[in-house]
Amino acid sequence: MTTSPPTKLSTIAILGGTGKEGPGLAMRWASAGYAIIIGSRQLEKAQATAADINAKLNMDRVSGLENSDAARSADIAVLTVVQSAHQAAVEGLRDALQGKILIDATARVDFRAPRPPEQPSAARIAQDILGPGVKVVAAYQNVPAGALKKDLGQPMDVDVLVCADEVQAAETVMQLTQAAGMHAYYAGSLDNAIVVEGLTSILISMNKYYGGHSAAIRITGIQQP
Amino acid sequence: MTTSPPTKLSTIAILGGTGKEGPGLAMRWASAGYAIIIGSRQLEKAQATAADINAKLNMDRVSGLENSDAARSADIAVLTVVQSAHQAAVEGLRDALQGKILIDATARVDFRAPRPPEQPSAARIAQDILGPGVKVVAAYQNVPAGALKKDLGQPMDVDVLVCADEVQAAETVMQLTQAAGMHAYYAGSLDNAIVVEGLTSILISMNKYYGGHSAAIRITGIQQP
Repeated sequence: MTTSPPTKLSTIAILGGTGKEGPGLAMRWASAGYAIIIGSRQLEKAQATAADINAKLNMDRVSGLENSDAARSADIAVLTVVQSAHQAAVEGLRDALQGKILIDATARVDFRAPRPPEQPSAARIAQDILGPGVKVVAAYQNVPAGALKKDLGQPMDVDVLVCADEVQAAETVMQLTQAAGMHAYYAGSLDNAIVVEGLTSILISMNKYYGGHSAAIRITGIQQP
Repeated sequence: MTTSPPTKLSTIAILGGTGKEGPGLAMRWASAGYAIIIGSRQLEKAQATAADINAKLNMDRVSGLENSDAARSADIAVLTVVQSAHQAAVEGLRDALQGKILIDATARVDFRAPRPPEQPSAARIAQDILGPGVKVVAAYQNVPAGALKKDLGQPMDVDVLVCADEVQAAETVMQLTQAAGMHAYYAGSLDNAIVVEGLTSILISMNKYYGGHSAAIRITGIQQP
């Protein structure tokens, strides 16, 4: 299911990459041949997570840097901070991200009392802070962290809705998503990302109700792109 | 995939049942043994749609009545009016629906320029109008009308998110949903239905982008209830 690799694979920074979601994404992309930089506010934490992933994969494709340095050194960045840190993180990364694509994976959901957030979406907030020099793309808000770390190199039973104001930026992210073993669908502008955030809230509710931690969605009824 | 039928099957009224979504639901439930009343503002239209469905199914389980009479004669009602008629329809049915469950399938989405609606959800609006004597359940907002009419009696490649303030009312609707050939999941309170409405908007966008008319979702990562 992985796409054929482009001539030169991008370097991907995973900002706030020491949390729940970041390491799983890092492992999938590193397994697919991408160079990965784990970013953290604390350099040591970033380096420790990178070393841990390299050891698990028996590879040396993952390094660790402070968030801004990670963003500057990468072709494309992914933001996987906890929701409470979202706005401050984006503000702090404004300069480092200019000219790049930022994939925002933030869903503003309270895990204890999940309910759908209201507009603007987290990704729209990020776009407004970062300005037109950064192309924000919303994705991965509801990918179960545990599922990412299992069966690396195998397709996941999870689809990704990719929202972006520019289709071209979305397509770059959709290729990365395929490389990580997930099908991706273009789901419209950054404003539509509010639905994906809300879906995250519903999936968390469903995990609680049915007992589990891996609820996700697949899309049906569309010819596979 | 259909559940074992209860001792006495409910009579289901499909209000605004002459449109796109109603006839497909009617066909699936009639095929599963339920008595169906198609409701319309115009008695003749309701009767014509009912006769058409009976002819297609070679059965006689579907009748037609004016909306209020249909609601009064049924154990459970489904509202499948076009979104612009939603509020007036609910107001007009207030008395007839007391003591019953109303399944609200309304998604307030402009098909020409789909974008996620804001709170309150259509189903919450309906609940507020109808008062505590009616149990409103939100479901079927994003079930493709065409898919309902195909392969009756076969499971559909579509899952249904069921939102209700009372789990017991949701469970009744989830059983009906299984009987129609779809898996159903309890997705929290009526406020969560805003996400399902927004999802409808995204699925319409995806149908336009990818070319099609059957985009839908499945849930993964949960032990089948």
